[in-house]
Amino acid sequence: MHQTVDAALGINLLHANQEGADHNRAHFDAWGVTCFNVMSSPGAGKTVLLERTLTALKDELNLAVIEGDMTTELDADRLRKQGIPVIAINTGRSCHLDAQMVAGGIHQLEQCTDSQSLDLVLVENVGNLVCPAEFEVGEHAKIALLSVTEGEDKPLKYPVMFQSADCLLVTKIDLIPYLEINLEQIHYNVRQLNPQATIIPVSARSGAGLAQWFDWVRQQVAQRQRPVVSSH
Amino acid sequence: MHQTVDAALGINLLHANQEGADHNRAHFDAWGVTCFNVMSSPGAGKTVLLERTLTALKDELNLAVIEGDMTTELDADRLRKQGIPVIAINTGRSCHLDAQMVAGGIHQLEQCTDSQSLDLVLVENVGNLVCPAEFEVGEHAKIALLSVTEGEDKPLKYPVMFQSADCLLVTKIDLIPYLEINLEQIHYNVRQLNPQATIIPVSARSGAGLAQWFDWVRQQVAQRQRPVVSSH
Repeated sequence: MHQTVDAALGINLLHANQEGADHNRAHFDAWGVTCFNVMSSPGAGKTVLLERTLTALKDELNLAVIEGDMTTELDADRLRKQGIPVIAINTGRSCHLDAQMVAGGIHQLEQCTDSQSLDLVLVENVGNLVCPAEFEVGEHAKIALLSVTEGEDKPLKYPVMFQSADCLLVTKIDLIPYLEINLEQIHYNVRQLNPQATIIPVSARSGAGLAQWFDWVRQQVAQRQRPVVSSH
Repeated sequence: MHQTVDAALGINLLHANQEGADHNRAHFDAWGVTCFNVMSSPGAGKTVLLERTLTALKDELNLAVIEGDMTTELDADRLRKQGIPVIAINTGRSCHLDAQMVAGGIHQLEQCTDSQSLDLVLVENVGNLVCPAEFEVGEHAKIALLSVTEGEDKPLKYPVMFQSADCLLVTKIDLIPYLEINLEQIHYNVRQLNPQATIIPVSARSGAGLAQWFDWVRQQVAQRQRPVVSSH
């Protein structure tokens, strides 16, 4: 939160956002759809992770993306090549997606696809390790990415993101040989803040760890799918 | 800016911040001190750049640091090993330093050092490629860092930072052989937004480009130093 906004106003903003997020989640629940909020610093590899995930899972799950960027549709255009619905939201000067923006995305999704048939909506947030963690958008799980190039200390310095993550993907592990980085120290620092999160080291380039991530995605989706109504 | 703050309030916040920034700059000008606002994504290498800069220049310039982090004094403690004044500001939940926070840092600096004798105050902002670009803190120059690991598209996707930078340091160039990255494309993308900025590719690890950066710092400081008052 911007500290220049006074505390009461800040609380009201977050409260109003939370109501909007709960409303979005109710939409997703009514559809039997799982929603992930994918967050990280700029350049940690969110879009390439989504590319790999769509490629791997689009034949077994019905997927859609809500793609947040301050400006441009560069990432949305990359993902549209996968042939799935991708709704682009330009946040303008805003440093994060909020529930209201994602509500707009949900209504666009309803226009362009059979929302009832979707299994998973992936929301790619603006690249920012701070504010997206505070503004829920209606997700069922928060996915945080931390690139090994960012350093071991980031969980300690940006704790809100790492405290709230359900799954942390430690990305670009193919670069470890060229860095002075200790993967164990990243794990240790995250565990100080968040004992529950699933932590998966991955490389979109080499493919390492991606199978474990896809399995985690499948489990999350299976948990929330509507039970098949018996025909007799 | 958070779009959930209405437009008028947003403008008022930025206006009040600008007044505070101008006040801070008047302090620096009265001291004959240059101030840099050093900004980037988390993990782009701001702190190691400052370490190298302090090591190289502390014998010829009087330096101080105002170190912004959401939480912890990890970076401040790293820089204190250089034996110069380092004021730590924890921003709490705020995603950027603002002029009021830096005013507090300036007053602390006045307590712990002879502020009149300083040449350069380096403000290290919170790691965030969005909001710090909008909240001036009283700096004379904005220094933006972009790591080659973040990708060529970041200037296009986070334009405010790259439009406003006086000097852009493209960092971690020692990693280029291990990445699919084109340095010329980064230059091209920045130039679309900002024809004037000085662009210096650097590696804190190999030392490449640092001599050019130190010269740029020296020139900036020399421009603003008070003329020596003649003794006769």
